[in-house]
Amino acid sequence: MTCPAYFNSIHHDGSVRYVQPQEPRLNELVTLRLRAVPEAPIQRVLLRSEDDGEGYFLPMSAEELRPGAAARWWRVELRLKMPVTHYRFLLFTEDGAWWYNGSGLHEHTPTDNEDFRLLADYEAPHWVRQSVFYQIFPDRFYDGDPTHNMRDGEYEYRGLRARARKWDEPPTPKGLEALVEFYGGDLQGIAQKLDYLQELGVNALYLNPIFTAYSNHRYDVCDYFNVDPHLGGNQALIELRQALSERGMRYILDIVPNHCGALHPWFTAAQADPNAETADFFTFNQRPDDYATWLGVKMLPKLNYKSEKLRQVMYAAPEAVFRRWLQPPFSADGWRIDVANMLARQGRDQLAVEVGRGIRRAVKETNPQAYLMGENFFDATPQLQGDLLDAVMNYAGFASPVWYWLNSFAAFYKGEFFTSSKPWTAEALAASWQAYRAGIPWAIAIQQFNSLGSHDTMRIRFTCGGDLDLNRMAAVLLFTYIGTPCVYYGEEVGLGDATSQEKRQPMPWNPDAWDMELRTFYQKLISLRKNSSALSEGGFQVLLAEGNRLAFLRDSEKELLISVAFRGPGEQPAFDLPVAHGAIADGIEFIELFSGRRARVENGLLPIPAMHTGGAVWRAYR
Amino acid sequence: MTCPAYFNSIHHDGSVRYVQPQEPRLNELVTLRLRAVPEAPIQRVLLRSEDDGEGYFLPMSAEELRPGAAARWWRVELRLKMPVTHYRFLLFTEDGAWWYNGSGLHEHTPTDNEDFRLLADYEAPHWVRQSVFYQIFPDRFYDGDPTHNMRDGEYEYRGLRARARKWDEPPTPKGLEALVEFYGGDLQGIAQKLDYLQELGVNALYLNPIFTAYSNHRYDVCDYFNVDPHLGGNQALIELRQALSERGMRYILDIVPNHCGALHPWFTAAQADPNAETADFFTFNQRPDDYATWLGVKMLPKLNYKSEKLRQVMYAAPEAVFRRWLQPPFSADGWRIDVANMLARQGRDQLAVEVGRGIRRAVKETNPQAYLMGENFFDATPQLQGDLLDAVMNYAGFASPVWYWLNSFAAFYKGEFFTSSKPWTAEALAASWQAYRAGIPWAIAIQQFNSLGSHDTMRIRFTCGGDLDLNRMAAVLLFTYIGTPCVYYGEEVGLGDATSQEKRQPMPWNPDAWDMELRTFYQKLISLRKNSSALSEGGFQVLLAEGNRLAFLRDSEKELLISVAFRGPGEQPAFDLPVAHGAIADGIEFIELFSGRRARVENGLLPIPAMHTGGAVWRAYR
Repeated sequence: MTCPAYFNSIHHDGSVRYVQPQEPRLNELVTLRLRAVPEAPIQRVLLRSEDDGEGYFLPMSAEELRPGAAARWWRVELRLKMPVTHYRFLLFTEDGAWWYNGSGLHEHTPTDNEDFRLLADYEAPHWVRQSVFYQIFPDRFYDGDPTHNMRDGEYEYRGLRARARKWDEPPTPKGLEALVEFYGGDLQGIAQKLDYLQELGVNALYLNPIFTAYSNHRYDVCDYFNVDPHLGGNQALIELRQALSERGMRYILDIVPNHCGALHPWFTAAQADPNAETADFFTFNQRPDDYATWLGVKMLPKLNYKSEKLRQVMYAAPEAVFRRWLQPPFSADGWRIDVANMLARQGRDQLAVEVGRGIRRAVKETNPQAYLMGENFFDATPQLQGDLLDAVMNYAGFASPVWYWLNSFAAFYKGEFFTSSKPWTAEALAASWQAYRAGIPWAIAIQQFNSLGSHDTMRIRFTCGGDLDLNRMAAVLLFTYIGTPCVYYGEEVGLGDATSQEKRQPMPWNPDAWDMELRTFYQKLISLRKNSSALSEGGFQVLLAEGNRLAFLRDSEKELLISVAFRGPGEQPAFDLPVAHGAIADGIEFIELFSGRRARVENGLLPIPAMHTGGAVWRAYR
Repeated sequence: MTCPAYFNSIHHDGSVRYVQPQEPRLNELVTLRLRAVPEAPIQRVLLRSEDDGEGYFLPMSAEELRPGAAARWWRVELRLKMPVTHYRFLLFTEDGAWWYNGSGLHEHTPTDNEDFRLLADYEAPHWVRQSVFYQIFPDRFYDGDPTHNMRDGEYEYRGLRARARKWDEPPTPKGLEALVEFYGGDLQGIAQKLDYLQELGVNALYLNPIFTAYSNHRYDVCDYFNVDPHLGGNQALIELRQALSERGMRYILDIVPNHCGALHPWFTAAQADPNAETADFFTFNQRPDDYATWLGVKMLPKLNYKSEKLRQVMYAAPEAVFRRWLQPPFSADGWRIDVANMLARQGRDQLAVEVGRGIRRAVKETNPQAYLMGENFFDATPQLQGDLLDAVMNYAGFASPVWYWLNSFAAFYKGEFFTSSKPWTAEALAASWQAYRAGIPWAIAIQQFNSLGSHDTMRIRFTCGGDLDLNRMAAVLLFTYIGTPCVYYGEEVGLGDATSQEKRQPMPWNPDAWDMELRTFYQKLISLRKNSSALSEGGFQVLLAEGNRLAFLRDSEKELLISVAFRGPGEQPAFDLPVAHGAIADGIEFIELFSGRRARVENGLLPIPAMHTGGAVWRAYR
């Protein structure tokens, strides 16, 4: 298919300029709009939707074209009769007929997979889109109360004795030893560092697991009903909650419903006795040692959601785990569900939808504004249709494509990375972002949990080969892409380096160890993110994706923001960025966030000064 | 993304050369293969699959390259742990890393939507892939017993009196009158014309509704438990079944579970009395006249599957409708479900999966080899994952793209067709076919119900503007594409013309009215289809899609078949069709089905003689 120039000016997304109201009720009329450059030879636009599986068309009306306008608009009213309504557009032009959906323009008829989607009666946790998260691995952030620190040899775990480590010792790189060394970080420590976090600007915390367990990552839960005493116990959480509330901050907890620790009394009882109360919480091929686990790890027996009793304990009953911690006095603002991709899935028994809906019901009954977010490294589109999760850790839809662009594509297989012979292009980055956004309702997309790294991945500084210019560029993408950004503790001061794959270092508290320039850069981006309607809920359009450089637009009713990223190497000479297809009128003046430079749109072009590896953020108002 | 030439030689589909065994059991190992031209600079191939939502890679082994081989092959064994397993490939080449899935090669990471899919423990109705169907609209095929014909004025329906028509009178073009005129076709008539059908070569029938109703289309069912007396009643069906069995023929019935006729006693009772036994079979906003219907048609009240009683009557109970007709003495070989796209979907209540699975259970319990096929004009991918339907009437995945290519793209809105200013290209045709195949397991794709027209659409002759050359070309596509072909009664003799939109003409039985050349053409294709493993289960690869011409390969272990279609206008000069990317070795000789011409592959090219508008089928053996 040949692509006339006006093609890339055809645009719709779920943001406020295109969809109103933003949170429709069932059976409500929604106004949908589509735009293109005024000169586009578009003869007719139809909206294509479906009710109860039956497709139909609605003609769209062209709005009056005001003189000098940067765009023509079409509009139509669509009634939402189902919980999820999908739609796409059909354009008749002098070049033929074209479908426009979440993955762009097509001559052929696409399937419904990448239709735009609207949710009816979906209550978004609104605070999320106003938030910048900070992820904390509790043992490694700050030791606020040494009295309850793990003592050397306090217990034995898989033949290994728990070890107390000093804050400035490097963690053991790998192996089981790495799991039972403790630095003493705790909830009191987090509470004591809230000044630091507020100065940075973040306003929500995501805490890795804090319930009682034996390893330092605590994904091997042994008691879902109590905070680990080494972290300060339940009382410390209550106090942290209070301290956060006083500062208007939120926090979410990490829950592990897919499996528990093999030392959990549920499991040891089930292992010992087929008639135990919790016998059917697990799947034994043969007692005691042949049982279902998480990916073959014997210390993590998989929980079996065919058990109605387990469902009650985990989410259904009034005092179930999922409900308990959202209630006072703990009042967590949501959950991050570990291994949400595998939850309640076991071979023949694929119960993910049934159990996932039950969990959602429990959570939203307890707090309708709770954020229900899941871990999923892969394609989570089916979990993001309004009936299951509010968001996932958006590795596939945000972070991985960034990593592949700034480094190179890599597939991980049995401890080995297979990398591509050529780096990814910006086209591939943009196409990946688009593919993983295409089938997701906008209300979900803008609260996806984006990060550049976590306790499970390389630190971004390592991924950038230690290059802080690249790191800054990545940060610009993080804070200006669609979704809610999260900073992994220490990332803001350049924790890590180009050589160590360590991801769970103790946070350095001596400012001499910090990269102050990077921290200031993050502070600016965090502040921008919290004060920009274009970023919290504005539309998204790629303006340029070409090899080493990428530019995209975020825009709300009044604000325009253009991110420009250049991954290097070398210098990007000054160039004129086409912006007319973004419906940006001539004469609009942009100011760059970090340099304060100004640039004015002329003839549909925004002059971008020469830049080294890095990112720039150009902002303007309509 | 630039595309080196070897890209289009990279191929995998679900057919026997690529997947073995073809009908795996749960937990069985399946061997998967991928091929490319020998010179492709592929360094490594990984298979990417997932278990319980967790992605993983398996390295594929390169098979030994035999001298002179037309392809290199890679293989891997994959264990199927779930009812549906999806997978795609990751290729590392000197040009980078590339994903290969059901929609082709991609630099960016695709979502799972277009992954290849394998079903475990799926029992295919094997007879379907060996069948050529013939669709009969019973009132219009043949009057075998005039004694039970509708009498003029026999009843009144919506203020109109039933009318008896003579066989050679043209049907009333539109309006309610058209629904109550009867020509007297019946089941005895079908039984009496089995010689004709066998001579044509078809071996399975799809009958439009035959249960008691008031209109001639009988979608307004008034009694799901009895064949309409005007068609011969239950006894005639029993006799037709016997006659078909004697000839080794099959038949499927048309069921209307989405709605019934407003004269059905279930509805009239429910309308009259909120406490009626069947009151909850329907959805009344206000009795008696404000109720849910099929698309606003008051005569077709929608059935409400929230009613457990309705579920029992329709499918769950031992004598339920869905079961009854599959049992002796009727022993239908399957169902075509009317409006399957809308079934059990009503605004807030989307019960399609639950009810659809219940129907499947009922049908397969009664006869595991029953063919469960549904009407769906739109994207039916979610219904075709092994747990709901065995197939749909494949308008979206086969027929519509053909229509758009040989005519022009058209969207239908409120009685008006909006057509595109330019005809579709072969690229768009091929891309549509691919999109609608991409997310469907191969086992399903090869039994999709393909046709060029039906009782609900224009006749193919009309769609072709009366051009029988185009009609023949379309027939070549029908009989050589993936899936099970169906001939709509009369299509084989050129019923209809370029001007009349009539689709339900009485079948002409005077051979003078037949186009004998067309009939011979159909006979050849039908015979080919029944005697070609390449067509019944072979792989599929587009060799050329370029504007006015299309060529694709079907191949099994021993057989190669290349369809070449040229839609005109004018003459297509002789040209060399590239076939090397189809792994077709030099020296192989092809014979054309209709002309008997021969052509031999040289230097990766198959010389195709000049052709007028039409289709050719080139066949060879390995």
